[in-house]
Amino acid sequence: MNERLQRQLDFALEIDKEKNIFRQTHLSGHGRNENDAEHAWHMAVMAYLLREYSNEEIDIAKVMLMCLIHDIVEIEAGDTYAYDEQNKKTQKAREDAAKEKIYSILPDDQKRELIELFDEFEACRTAEAKFAHAMDNLQPLLLNNSNNGSDWQEHQVTSSQVYERQKKTKTGSEQLFQVTDDIIQNNIKKGSLLP
Amino acid sequence: MNERLQRQLDFALEIDKEKNIFRQTHLSGHGRNENDAEHAWHMAVMAYLLREYSNEEIDIAKVMLMCLIHDIVEIEAGDTYAYDEQNKKTQKAREDAAKEKIYSILPDDQKRELIELFDEFEACRTAEAKFAHAMDNLQPLLLNNSNNGSDWQEHQVTSSQVYERQKKTKTGSEQLFQVTDDIIQNNIKKGSLLP
Repeated sequence: MNERLQRQLDFALEIDKEKNIFRQTHLSGHGRNENDAEHAWHMAVMAYLLREYSNEEIDIAKVMLMCLIHDIVEIEAGDTYAYDEQNKKTQKAREDAAKEKIYSILPDDQKRELIELFDEFEACRTAEAKFAHAMDNLQPLLLNNSNNGSDWQEHQVTSSQVYERQKKTKTGSEQLFQVTDDIIQNNIKKGSLLP
Repeated sequence: MNERLQRQLDFALEIDKEKNIFRQTHLSGHGRNENDAEHAWHMAVMAYLLREYSNEEIDIAKVMLMCLIHDIVEIEAGDTYAYDEQNKKTQKAREDAAKEKIYSILPDDQKRELIELFDEFEACRTAEAKFAHAMDNLQPLLLNNSNNGSDWQEHQVTSSQVYERQKKTKTGSEQLFQVTDDIIQNNIKKGSLLP
């Protein structure tokens, strides 16, 4: 086998580890914690089905790929919970080291391409990155809402923390932010989310 | 919320259940059984990275979407192991009933679109479907090989059964079929696969 293909297959095997990176979100039906691979899959399918709600025109193939790869760095850097302020301080440094290490398994051209795509997602300035972030926020919100906000209750999250995070949803999709707002307000009323 | 968006979000929540459909394949590092959502995510990323090996020109966005949705029917129909000849007899009927039920949650246009895409995958006649099938075969093969063929050992699978299944890999990619062939031959030598 030539070196290029060998590196591609090595990378394909390496990312299998993303299935063991668990998040704070629980599956619907009060299920177990979700892992990063499942979350990425779910986001990519949702992005395709909800693309008509993007504020700006988007290249949906690029959004889907962004969704699929955005958490690969967590194989090395670990998951950082959205409301863990302590861990968020070191998140960028940990993820930058991780991206260099993991993507170096790939041939150079593909390494560069995927790092660029990951950086674009993180910077959240292009239409595609904004819509991918809307999915990154909406997907766990739907699951958590289906479980009566139990993830928020467990971590005593406040509505202002959630609104702060969901700002990016609004830049990706005003219409989906409306859904988000309704869900947040409902969970405050039910007492699942601290006002 | 309008009815269209409500149906799209209901569908997004419904497919969360795919994370509880477990396969016979085990994760690398002699891990637990893999589920359908993880498998679909892995296939879609691999499809993108390995697209240069497709025998024919392909629309990679279409291949990725095909990979992402091809097992959604299993939420209703259950997973059918590739070498379970008894269950394979009823597979088509079970999956046809399932696809009608699950995709009916979506607005009609999206229901039709995703059923068409699923049917195209199943028929395995277009370039995209052939390459998606190559990924459907190669992804578990890589995992199983990394575990010294323990999935084959557990089910006493023979090399002729594996070659029969991998015919579709060849129609999608001659080059990736070479990799497959090497892996099969190695596993026969090691005694993990019955000759």
